Amino acid sequence: MTTIKDVAREVGVHPSTVSRALDPARRGRIGEPVVRRVLEAAERLGYRPDTVAASLRRGRSNLVGIIVPDIANPVFSPIISGLESVLSARGYALIVADPQPRRSGDGDIVQRLAARRVDGLVLANVALRDETVDRCIHWKLPAVLVNRAEAEARVPSVVSDDVAGMRLAVHHLLALGHRRILHLAGPQTLSTGTLRRRGFVDAMSQAGFTPASDDIEEADAFTRKAGYAAARRLLARRPQATAVVAANDLLALGVYEALRSMNRRCPEDLSVIGHNDMPLVDLVDPPLSTVRISHREMGKQTGELLLDLIEGIRRDAPHIVTAPVLIARRSTAGPAMCGA
Amino acid sequence: MTTIKDVAREVGVHPSTVSRALDPARRGRIGEPVVRRVLEAAERLGYRPDTVAASLRRGRSNLVGIIVPDIANPVFSPIISGLESVLSARGYALIVADPQPRRSGDGDIVQRLAARRVDGLVLANVALRDETVDRCIHWKLPAVLVNRAEAEARVPSVVSDDVAGMRLAVHHLLALGHRRILHLAGPQTLSTGTLRRRGFVDAMSQAGFTPASDDIEEADAFTRKAGYAAARRLLARRPQATAVVAANDLLALGVYEALRSMNRRCPEDLSVIGHNDMPLVDLVDPPLSTVRISHREMGKQTGELLLDLIEGIRRDAPHIVTAPVLIARRSTAGPAMCGA
Repeated sequence: MTTIKDVAREVGVHPSTVSRALDPARRGRIGEPVVRRVLEAAERLGYRPDTVAASLRRGRSNLVGIIVPDIANPVFSPIISGLESVLSARGYALIVADPQPRRSGDGDIVQRLAARRVDGLVLANVALRDETVDRCIHWKLPAVLVNRAEAEARVPSVVSDDVAGMRLAVHHLLALGHRRILHLAGPQTLSTGTLRRRGFVDAMSQAGFTPASDDIEEADAFTRKAGYAAARRLLARRPQATAVVAANDLLALGVYEALRSMNRRCPEDLSVIGHNDMPLVDLVDPPLSTVRISHREMGKQTGELLLDLIEGIRRDAPHIVTAPVLIARRSTAGPAMCGA
Repeated sequence: MTTIKDVAREVGVHPSTVSRALDPARRGRIGEPVVRRVLEAAERLGYRPDTVAASLRRGRSNLVGIIVPDIANPVFSPIISGLESVLSARGYALIVADPQPRRSGDGDIVQRLAARRVDGLVLANVALRDETVDRCIHWKLPAVLVNRAEAEARVPSVVSDDVAGMRLAVHHLLALGHRRILHLAGPQTLSTGTLRRRGFVDAMSQAGFTPASDDIEEADAFTRKAGYAAARRLLARRPQATAVVAANDLLALGVYEALRSMNRRCPEDLSVIGHNDMPLVDLVDPPLSTVRISHREMGKQTGELLLDLIEGIRRDAPHIVTAPVLIARRSTAGPAMCGA
């Protein structure tokens, strides 16, 4: 096996120069031509850097884990994509892990990742009080929450401003002339569920239309199926309503299916607005009005924040809140169209 | 730091029993009550298994990498999800990597993952002759291709039967009464592009409707945008056609947009069928007929195959071809509807 000494002999420099030239973080101190000659010689001689041995020496693995409960959920893939791009640019690799225990006695997912000596973790989907966060604190692993936050801010987070997003949705419907507006809420065990519900209630109340508790129905999960079931309950109870603000796009698509099953049309009979702007909602029938969250950007910010903490560049633990944007498509229209 | 010896002393067994009980692959040989006592004591004493040290001893990292060119593409997330579920069940973790070099002189992605001592790689998106495969062979890394294969079978692969899928699509349209059927092909540098084109030509020819070269148009990429541009060219050239078989769903959605821009309706003026059955195409307008590929299942089979190769359970290199299924929705209808 080719060693750093072999490369140094080939190029005619000291081994420490070779090891600096091979380390992207340190090669800036060496002249560009030397770096190029070292890299060429390393390639030619088949030198294979040993990241694992290097990480044992430095006490850092340059591995970061992300725990996602549902990798195939279209909201998480742009988060993973943005995170990976930042990590690889800074010399880290990303382990993607589903929290479900696959074998009894394996220990929890945080312990398994800690055993792999990950330098830090991204938690993509915590509950309002999440045991995974307890485990990160227990194992002293730097962690950043993304997309959903805990009720109590124990570790840093990068989330969208859910309250502001709901204000955008409610103001959009009020501007169209709606007054009888319902909320299809997400699970109240999740920050996205509680904060969007609070945002809805606040925005409606400030406009003088404080919602009754009957105007809100909670879905069991952020899925089309749960959205369908909850929408059926909500619309049966409030047939005169002219608009529904759903807590996310999948729930909004569940409202579409409920309307179809009841032979009611969107937007003629009911305006519907979602939250997320996930891929393809611009092509559903009708194209879905929604509140856009840049999940890819959130993934990138999460990566920068976590690596800054791991590398000691920052020691404070900020909570980054990104601003959502209203995307008006054809699922929302004036209530006049409903002929009521 | 708690060691295996501490746990052994606590439970009153030999350290080798503790290390077996802690290893899911070997604990089967030990009685269930002992395993439970060991795991409980390990948790109580705060024993933290050191996967990295263990992997250095065994010469295996229990890490597998997947190289995906576009993590956010909805086709790849179910592959990643299925793969991860198999890996974690067998004690492996998954590194997700985008092949784009982020820093000059970092070496290619295979070298970077080899330096992390991954035990094997999954390549999710190879060209017909792919340099990444050269690099895996160069670094002697076990690799399995998924979703797309090379023209020459150098390493094992798990792909859908693209030719059979196109036969399903063509037979569906023929059965509806279509004869003037066009093909919107994918890039001919990819197996999914060439094999689906061949499947289209074969199925049409066998039915006695050998397509002219003008009946086929190639999109630059498997994207909505490229599908839109190619569909505009194709439909301008063949205005009398009654149906289009697109090489995947994103291209089919591009056909939708082209039709809209030309004030033509689907399926009244043109039937459209896609390939993949990616999430939400059942909710687009009109719901898209397509050929369903189970990407999650392919991801699982890829994981089993790769781990069998890594662990020496199998030495041969099979090529697994999964059977696609026709999903008829509302974007395909009889040509009589077009009034021609």
